[in-house]
Amino acid sequence: MTQIQACYNFAMKVSELGEFGLIDLLAKMANVPRDNRIASWRQLRLGIGDDAAAWQGDDSIQLATVDSFIQDVHFPSGLASWDELGWKAMAVNLSDIAAMGGVPRYALVSLALPENTEVDDVTALYTGMIDLAKQFGVAIIGGNISRAPLVAITIAILCTSTNRDRHILTRSTAEPGELVAVTGELGAAAAGLEMLTKRLQFDPQATVFLRNAFFHPYPRIAEGQLLVDHGVKTAIDISDGLISDLNQVCKASGVSARVEIDRVPVEPTVKAQFSGKSLELALSGGEDYELLFTARAEVVDRVKRAATCLITVIGEIVAGKGVTLVDRQGNPISLGKAGWEHFITR
Amino acid sequence: MTQIQACYNFAMKVSELGEFGLIDLLAKMANVPRDNRIASWRQLRLGIGDDAAAWQGDDSIQLATVDSFIQDVHFPSGLASWDELGWKAMAVNLSDIAAMGGVPRYALVSLALPENTEVDDVTALYTGMIDLAKQFGVAIIGGNISRAPLVAITIAILCTSTNRDRHILTRSTAEPGELVAVTGELGAAAAGLEMLTKRLQFDPQATVFLRNAFFHPYPRIAEGQLLVDHGVKTAIDISDGLISDLNQVCKASGVSARVEIDRVPVEPTVKAQFSGKSLELALSGGEDYELLFTARAEVVDRVKRAATCLITVIGEIVAGKGVTLVDRQGNPISLGKAGWEHFITR
Repeated sequence: MTQIQACYNFAMKVSELGEFGLIDLLAKMANVPRDNRIASWRQLRLGIGDDAAAWQGDDSIQLATVDSFIQDVHFPSGLASWDELGWKAMAVNLSDIAAMGGVPRYALVSLALPENTEVDDVTALYTGMIDLAKQFGVAIIGGNISRAPLVAITIAILCTSTNRDRHILTRSTAEPGELVAVTGELGAAAAGLEMLTKRLQFDPQATVFLRNAFFHPYPRIAEGQLLVDHGVKTAIDISDGLISDLNQVCKASGVSARVEIDRVPVEPTVKAQFSGKSLELALSGGEDYELLFTARAEVVDRVKRAATCLITVIGEIVAGKGVTLVDRQGNPISLGKAGWEHFITR
Repeated sequence: MTQIQACYNFAMKVSELGEFGLIDLLAKMANVPRDNRIASWRQLRLGIGDDAAAWQGDDSIQLATVDSFIQDVHFPSGLASWDELGWKAMAVNLSDIAAMGGVPRYALVSLALPENTEVDDVTALYTGMIDLAKQFGVAIIGGNISRAPLVAITIAILCTSTNRDRHILTRSTAEPGELVAVTGELGAAAAGLEMLTKRLQFDPQATVFLRNAFFHPYPRIAEGQLLVDHGVKTAIDISDGLISDLNQVCKASGVSARVEIDRVPVEPTVKAQFSGKSLELALSGGEDYELLFTARAEVVDRVKRAATCLITVIGEIVAGKGVTLVDRQGNPISLGKAGWEHFITR
């Protein structure tokens, strides 16, 4: 316990330690009983700290992830329809599997609901979850329901590695000399949330697009598997924000990243409607659920040729620590906000 | 959707439909995308409706379960220490695996916490979870943390079937002519909760015992595996209450059960301290996390000889529906309360 206790001060609140500090602390504790005479520890490939956990199954690698989706924390109360909530809760979890290059197989759903919730709303919630799950052949096979003062949806996803290749994508394998690339375009989800919470008025097409960007993200399952197929080793999904998530990769890999901000693919509607703020939304807004990966230039080229979505190189991995943003001339610039972390009040 | 919608009235609240009604409804929805051309559906052995879900892995059967443990719903606020909460949240989930005769391997923990929670309390919570998990070689390998207005602990457990025998225990295989039996003694957990919430005063030994019965249940993992080894097919863990859980077995198996109330092993401290109410606590109090199983007399005898805990035959499976309680002379008797079901207000 000494090492663990040394990490924080006496009577510290979780809001002072922050989400990532707390995860580090609990990961250390969870690893204390590690004993390779026991099968579960011996077969463990990846514990706390990545998008999903992984262990050696009988024949393939097994993966599992769990995430909660809580009213007024992960989604604004009253703004989403129930089927949007269901879709997004499922999408957030499937995205963690996309980030590992896994094949999602089964989902378990733990629902907490106020007792005056209408049954029609719960079936709409399930409809949203099932609509997305079935697109990836994922079966919802269990879970539980309990009453609670607020809505909380916790989903666990069970997966396997792809048949063709048994390796999985992790956060900890980035190396200097690799390029940093992202799938798709960024900023629309955060722009959608801002539009909804600040009741901003746009034309109907932009309104629908931005709303869907926030509530209907489409997890990059196929792209994650494609990255594995083409030899990429390192990936993460952009949930907390590009900089924050890239920083997680740097931390886990013991490297630094340089991002050329002019190369970041800011989504065009966001650029048009949030001109001054669009870069910040793309860099630190989060919830786009695109994939960020690192690989050597020739691997990125192979991925670009094979992918059906946009793949953009935004920077490179170098020796050092943390994420540096640079302008076209290579001069470092700074941004106030670095992404979304639970508990830390900025 | 027609069949699903026919199950409930327009604008019904979940409190009117009840937990079990809602589970039935959502299970029907979740089964709609069933398609045996897809691997996940083809390999599924057991979906929504049992203590855990099960599917055919590469070599062994894989099992998974998820359960939430929510402040003021599953545990009274302020009465438990944080390590007791951690232990119990883990125990509740492991008990579902015990009820399947599975070998628990990995746990994922989703924690929701108010931001002013003290870090020491979170590490105490984890200590409780780890203390129990390591007794069964279970590794905590992932999860997530988020802020929330209340404490909610959701744990997913991943398991395999035992090496020796690939069958698992289910709720749906009880047959007329089998005996109904339980492990251990019943009523102490519910008595402990009553003592805590009503601030009842007992001698120190009884106080500690009853508190532990509620907060420190020991999941019957070894006994579940022993049941599989000796040919038992049907089991459930007593979480909602003996009658309620036995009723689930009857419903899933399409049979009826007769329970001779004088044979129910009421825990002695409960009998001594809650004389008039002790039988009700044992029959419908719940949270004892003992195993209830059905099997032919010779199988029960084999289990009795092999088990290190008390095994008591309390009745038999007959043709029909529901659970009947009978006295020593075989006359039916009735009890007001049938167990714990979420949402239904009695």
